[in-house]
Amino acid sequence: MSNRNISMAVIRRLPKYHRYLGDLLDKDIQRISSKELSDIIGFTASQIRQDLNNFGGFGQQGYGYNVEELYNEIGKILGLSRTYNSIIIGAGNLGQAIANYAGFTKAGFKIKALFDANPRMIGLKIRDFEILDSESIEEFVSENNIDIAILCIPKNGAQDVVDRLVKVGIKGIWNFAPLDLEVPKDVIVENVNLTESLFTLSYLMNENE
Amino acid sequence: MSNRNISMAVIRRLPKYHRYLGDLLDKDIQRISSKELSDIIGFTASQIRQDLNNFGGFGQQGYGYNVEELYNEIGKILGLSRTYNSIIIGAGNLGQAIANYAGFTKAGFKIKALFDANPRMIGLKIRDFEILDSESIEEFVSENNIDIAILCIPKNGAQDVVDRLVKVGIKGIWNFAPLDLEVPKDVIVENVNLTESLFTLSYLMNENE
Repeated sequence: MSNRNISMAVIRRLPKYHRYLGDLLDKDIQRISSKELSDIIGFTASQIRQDLNNFGGFGQQGYGYNVEELYNEIGKILGLSRTYNSIIIGAGNLGQAIANYAGFTKAGFKIKALFDANPRMIGLKIRDFEILDSESIEEFVSENNIDIAILCIPKNGAQDVVDRLVKVGIKGIWNFAPLDLEVPKDVIVENVNLTESLFTLSYLMNENE
Repeated sequence: MSNRNISMAVIRRLPKYHRYLGDLLDKDIQRISSKELSDIIGFTASQIRQDLNNFGGFGQQGYGYNVEELYNEIGKILGLSRTYNSIIIGAGNLGQAIANYAGFTKAGFKIKALFDANPRMIGLKIRDFEILDSESIEEFVSENNIDIAILCIPKNGAQDVVDRLVKVGIKGIWNFAPLDLEVPKDVIVENVNLTESLFTLSYLMNENE
């Protein structure tokens, strides 16, 4: 699949469509007009049509959208029709929170192991996942066909770990460390910067006063 | 302070400036040109000047920026010159991860308590914070001048908790629950949707293939 001219703004809205359509499916709603979808999701009906037209449309004049079909199609576009072997680097609270969240597994992101450098953590189990020694990351990634590394470590040393991961063929990094990683072009990094999010909240709270 | 015509795109870049300037301060760098800042932060020099001009400039022709001064000024703009009494709702792994992150406290976000509905969690301690019964949220918020609630609970029931928080005067919600909350206009919600972030990663990995 190649949709290289799709803007990041559209791409970031897709998971939101997917979430709302999933909620509708849970409520057994089978069909929805773009107007109704617009009311619940908060984008204009024309925005929704425009977004979905990037991927070929899906709606039918006078019928609207088939919820399950659209949910599945957006899932495919998001790459959710396959599974992703994933590892978590850093088995602290955040790493454990991610390992414990069943929703990621259900969506196809299979946690294969957690890694930590702290000898007291190595060998412990989080759900069904053993915490392995960070020294063995390369071997594990090579032998287990790992697609995604989830980085739950402090920023110091994070780039070194990423360099090691890239060398053994990691293609996606979900990065919770507060630094901008340097990776080759064929490796995707998605950042979650919690501090930046919190500071946006404080900005808006002060602006609001 | 009122900067209501500042775009969200600019606002979301401010914490990033703050982070990079903090890194420079840690390295004892006292002065930087907009060109050098541009090289490390990855925005164009003209973008940086334009962003900062929204708040009155700060740079000096031929000198560049005084790092500490700019760091402090952006901190003020972000609302970091005051403290925020905060509570965490949901003392699972994610709530604990946030309670354990000293960086938030250092930046002025003081965790006052965690709340959980699970009787087995109530009374336990996370760092210095006791886990309190969710039933007592209203009382605690009213008596302790709480500014921010950090929502680390599943989506079911989250809106109800938010309605209760709003009634007792919460002004900011940092929301990790995967739903769009309804709040009055004077309450700010900042969402962190981990599933949407992960699905963006899988989209980009597939687009990249």
